[in-house]
Amino acid sequence: MLFPEGVAIDGRSGAVTPETGRYVKRLSELRGLYQDDESLQRALAGGDDPVVYEVIEYRKPESDICFGTTIMQPGKVGDEYYLTRGHFHRRPECGEAYYTQSGEGVLLLDSRDGQSSVVEMRPGVCAFIPPEWAHRSINTGREPLVFVWFCATDAGHDYAEIGARGMRKLVLERDGARTIIDNPSYAS
Amino acid sequence: MLFPEGVAIDGRSGAVTPETGRYVKRLSELRGLYQDDESLQRALAGGDDPVVYEVIEYRKPESDICFGTTIMQPGKVGDEYYLTRGHFHRRPECGEAYYTQSGEGVLLLDSRDGQSSVVEMRPGVCAFIPPEWAHRSINTGREPLVFVWFCATDAGHDYAEIGARGMRKLVLERDGARTIIDNPSYAS
Repeated sequence: MLFPEGVAIDGRSGAVTPETGRYVKRLSELRGLYQDDESLQRALAGGDDPVVYEVIEYRKPESDICFGTTIMQPGKVGDEYYLTRGHFHRRPECGEAYYTQSGEGVLLLDSRDGQSSVVEMRPGVCAFIPPEWAHRSINTGREPLVFVWFCATDAGHDYAEIGARGMRKLVLERDGARTIIDNPSYAS
Repeated sequence: MLFPEGVAIDGRSGAVTPETGRYVKRLSELRGLYQDDESLQRALAGGDDPVVYEVIEYRKPESDICFGTTIMQPGKVGDEYYLTRGHFHRRPECGEAYYTQSGEGVLLLDSRDGQSSVVEMRPGVCAFIPPEWAHRSINTGREPLVFVWFCATDAGHDYAEIGARGMRKLVLERDGARTIIDNPSYAS
């Protein structure tokens, strides 16, 4: 039997207390997702393997909804800002909400029917992610980007499609400014 | 086809922009839910009918999850703090999350199998409401209590059971302090 509880969320650090699990994604695990593979290899060559993002979950399998935080570090690979892998949900009827707590970024979305969309991520903005839209978060700021996500417990993740074809847009720093361009190597 | 968007949530006022709907509950609509009916009648006798709470929704029927805010005014009926009606979800597998943004309060919960629970509501605390637990929010502070809720779009509300039998606990002000007592008129 599930019991209610108050879960403390630190909007700066992303800490979730109590948490039920967490994982970290380091730069070496994101090979192939950045346009500039040479810069990625160079960043890893020194032996460092920086954390790009961490996910902390509050997930109870017997409940229909779950939540957690994502903490994205600031950084770039070449001129491309740090990004998450990006995924569709395995269950096609499942959407999600990303409620930004601190930092600034961009949520890139690609729909199954060929559209793309960009939602600004900044404190106080809750991004609505409809079903059938792949989504990838990008930290375009100088501080960690922290958001709380809410979705169906069994939504599932399909990373393969985005991993193979990329997303339709890239978010780069050009002349010190954030720039969103069409992805020249998008495999439609 | 649904389109993503950034929904601005004001944690002080509870404004949701854009919103898809809202409703207000005034004191006269909450007759029978407070233990001290005489005080309630007296409060209404002057012709005032204060807003106790307002709900603002971002709800897209084609999405599995939705969210919104609840803005609870501070106040009491006799010595009992302002409360929401309280409900089970119509779909028994549906839980919910209440993420407090400002103010302070208490979330009272009663389970179908006879247990009760209390979760503190304060900024940064996300209350996990498991399936099969009725829940009622109570503003115990001097300012509005504002929280963001996330649940299944089709969770539904069953207000009848709590309306008829009450909840197992009451939250009162006694000697200037918040006090939680067993409800003497709970109809088990």
